[in-house]
Parts: sequence; structure tokens; C-alpha cells
Amino acid sequence: MAKTTSMLPLLLLLATAATSAWEMNIRMPTDRLVKDGGAALIHALRPVLGSGGQLAARAGVACDSWRVGVEAHNVIGWKTVPARCEGYVGHYMLGGHYRRDSALVVDEAIAYADKLTLAGNGKEVWIFDIDETSLSNLPYYATHGFGATPYNDTSFREYVAEGSAPALPETRRLYRRLLEIGVKPVFLTGRTEDQRAITVANLRRQGYSGWEKLLLKPAVHAAGELQGSAVAYKSGERQKLQNAGFIIVGNIGDQWSDILGAPEGARTFKLPDPMYYIG
Amino acid sequence: MAKTTSMLPLLLLLATAATSAWEMNIRMPTDRLVKDGGAALIHALRPVLGSGGQLAARAGVACDSWRVGVEAHNVIGWKTVPARCEGYVGHYMLGGHYRRDSALVVDEAIAYADKLTLAGNGKEVWIFDIDETSLSNLPYYATHGFGATPYNDTSFREYVAEGSAPALPETRRLYRRLLEIGVKPVFLTGRTEDQRAITVANLRRQGYSGWEKLLLKPAVHAAGELQGSAVAYKSGERQKLQNAGFIIVGNIGDQWSDILGAPEGARTFKLPDPMYYIG
Repeated sequence: MAKTTSMLPLLLLLATAATSAWEMNIRMPTDRLVKDGGAALIHALRPVLGSGGQLAARAGVACDSWRVGVEAHNVIGWKTVPARCEGYVGHYMLGGHYRRDSALVVDEAIAYADKLTLAGNGKEVWIFDIDETSLSNLPYYATHGFGATPYNDTSFREYVAEGSAPALPETRRLYRRLLEIGVKPVFLTGRTEDQRAITVANLRRQGYSGWEKLLLKPAVHAAGELQGSAVAYKSGERQKLQNAGFIIVGNIGDQWSDILGAPEGARTFKLPDPMYYIG
Repeated sequence: MAKTTSMLPLLLLLATAATSAWEMNIRMPTDRLVKDGGAALIHALRPVLGSGGQLAARAGVACDSWRVGVEAHNVIGWKTVPARCEGYVGHYMLGGHYRRDSALVVDEAIAYADKLTLAGNGKEVWIFDIDETSLSNLPYYATHGFGATPYNDTSFREYVAEGSAPALPETRRLYRRLLEIGVKPVFLTGRTEDQRAITVANLRRQGYSGWEKLLLKPAVHAAGELQGSAVAYKSGERQKLQNAGFIIVGNIGDQWSDILGAPEGARTFKLPDPMYYIG
């Protein structure tokens, strides 16, 4: 058991130590972990503080119930992950569980997309959020309490400025499938215009290309701005797209504020994110 | 382990054999199971096919990912629980997991309700769905594959006609709290007018009283009708309430069709239900 409990620091090390392409892959749980249900890694971790949440529940906080409450939009407006759930969320994010949950969402999205009948005029678009959707900031959050410590705008922007965020592989799989089908990707993000160059570089480096638009917030960044009215901003941008003749056939994000507010898009997909809440 | 695997049939027996008040309580996982995280029961069951989903994931279906996909409205329009997830859903529903998840949703709802400022004119209402929200049909579904076998309208209506469905204790806790606060409960259900008498009897027997309205579907029941446009029906009824001067401060149900469609209510709550989908 001593060996088991020592695996989280190891994972943290793997998740944060390096920036090369190969080591980027290590930052995210591997595909093998996802496919075999994380037998090798999660099985060892789970009895200690697994994302099944038993031990966490006995500690007085049903962390898995809390996580599902977040995903189902019952738990809203929270500022930080409950302190006792930091370990739980860390295991969830770094083990195969997060990847499995993300893969299922993307499988549903692709199944939906594959059945679409396109008009042939190239007007169908699919909205992609960026952070925790197209790109993963897990390397940052792994060293910042997995959302259990208050959001630090300065240090997070420094991380973004590195342009080193890995792709969430599931989302990239959807992105590429949509390009094959003929649906045009549109990025719509709470990132601001001053972050455009590094965001483009980061996206390209991670295998994203051929997008129709990359929509960033025009306002000069002010501290805490990301906590503002994301629903109003993002639904407003979607309305402009619709007014310009685009058909929003799909919309995917990790926050409910990505996918709430008319026009939502013909179908919406909520990727898991137990680390932070943007209202 | 042989002893462990034999517990599901025992639970099924407990869940379906009896109708007395005491045995009603047995039908739902006990509060103790919820509070201590299901240590006694779930711990024994989980290594076999627990609702943490590891074994299910290894079998090729990530049943816990599927369940969360349902709760987050990513998996829609499904007719039955995936065959391989029947055991998983059974364990989820009969163990403490379902009760823990429900308790968290209701804790959030009560925290929200306690902060409401009421106008004092008695016009604030809270919408309650009935099946799998105010009352639990788990005794029925426990003998019908936990949603893994196709919906049988005839046998389900026979079960409803018994009027024996136990309360979901968490929802009843919310209901009673709202009455204390001064928010009036309104039941809004896909059940039909011909089921009014037995529904009233069942609700009263389970400790519900003092509701403002009990809204049932007026149409004479036709086979499969419950699979119809629940969103249109329920949002229409909520609009009528609003037109009559009521303020819908909250809305709780186990289906997304209970809480989608304007006017949704000022805040909505989604109780877990991995057994069936109503669109």
C-alpha cells in the first residue's frame, strides 16, 4: 500500500516536469489506460482515494456525488473544489477516469455528427471551447491543487503564455472527424485578443488546423474577468454567427456557460470538468 | 467472494417481496448506507461489479461514464440501458450510491431555497416531477432489468395502479422544507388524469400533503404516450402557471425533459436516473 500511495507524486512529476512532444503525451493519461479501464494504474490507486469516491464519502464529503452534481448542473457558482476532494479530483483527472468520461462524450458527438445531412453550402459550423475542451490545462492545475486552491489569474495567464497546453485527445478526434465530414470548426473562448498569437501557436502545435474562426474576447483583460458573464458573451457570439448565415450544428465545452443561452446550437455536449466553474 | 456475489438476488428479494410500511423502508437503501458511504454493503459489492465501474469498463462498456453522460445530457434518446450495464445500474440503484447522489442534489436545492426572499403573497411555487422524483418506482424496475429491458407500458401501469411506490426520501425532505419556508409545491407529471386517484393516495401514503396543484396529462392514455414530447407538455404547463401569476422559483425532476424548455423555473435540479430516458 505504501507503494500505491506514492504514485500520485510520481504522476504529478510526470504531469509537470517536461515540455517535449513525447512528454506532452505523458501529461495526459495514455490511451491504453482509457481502453482497459485503467486497470494497471487506477486499480492500485482506487482503494486509497479512488474516483469511485468511497473513501472520500466516508470522510464526510461524497466527492463523486459532488462531481456528478457539477456535471449535471446541480452544483453551480462554486469558487473552489471542496478541500477534502482535492485528492479525489486529482486521481480523477490523472487516472483513466477523466479520459474515459471524455471519450464517451466525444463518441456521442461523433455518432451525432456522422448522421447529419449537410446542405452542401459550407455553412454548418461546430463551436469548440478551448480551455479544458480543445486544450487541457491539466499540467497547470496539477501543481495548483486541481482547483482546490483559489484561481490565480496571474499565474494562469503565465501558463497560457507558454503555449504548452496539450490537446485533449478526445476533442481533437472530434475536430478532425468534423473536418472530414465538412463541418467547419469555430473556436469560441473566454481567452482575450492579447492571447491570440500564443493560442494559435498552441493549437497548431497540438494538431489543430483548418478552423473557420477563432473568436476571442475583445476586451483588454482585467483581473477576474473570466469569472464574468460567459453565458451572455458566448451566446451573443453564437447569435452573430447565426446572423451571418452559419448553422450551428453542434457545440462542445467543459462549462455549462459554454452551452447554455440561445442560440445554443442544434446539439450541445458537456465535457467533464471538476476543477473550476465559470458562470 | 461467493457470498458477495449472492447479495444482488437478496437485495432484489428485499426490494420486491413486501408491501408493509417497514418493508417499504427496506426497498430504498437506508439512510445509514448513505451517511457512511455504503461501507457495509457497497464495499462488499463493489469489487464484483461496483458502481465505480471498473469491472464494467474492462468488459468494454464504461458504465459509469455512460451514467454520467446521461446525467450531463450528453447521452440522449436512448431506449434501454446498455445490456452490459444492467448489473452496474442495479448496484448503483440499490446500493448507497443513488441515495448519496440524490442527497447531494437535494442539499443544493435546500441551500438555494433557504436563501430565497419571498414576496409574501403566496405566489412562489416549486415544480415537482413524480416518478423517480417524488416517488420511486425502484421496486418495479428491480424486477424489470433496471431499464435494460424495453419499457412495458401495460405492466408499468399495473404497478402504478397498486399505489405502492415509496417516496424518494431526499425529495420528500425538500418538499417539507419548502412548505416550512412558504413555497408551494406543484406536482407536474407525465401520469394521466385516469391515474389521479391512485397517485393522490400514493403520495399521501408516502407523507406528501399540502400541495398547491397536481397537474396530470389530460389526454386519455395511449400506449407509449409517455415517450412523447414531455418538454413541450411540461413547459406549456409551466407557462400556464406563470400566466396565472405564479413565480416558479424551482423545478426538480429526474429527466432533462422535466427541466428544459422555457419557462424552466428560476433554478432547476436534475435528480439521477440511469434507468430510463423520456425526451
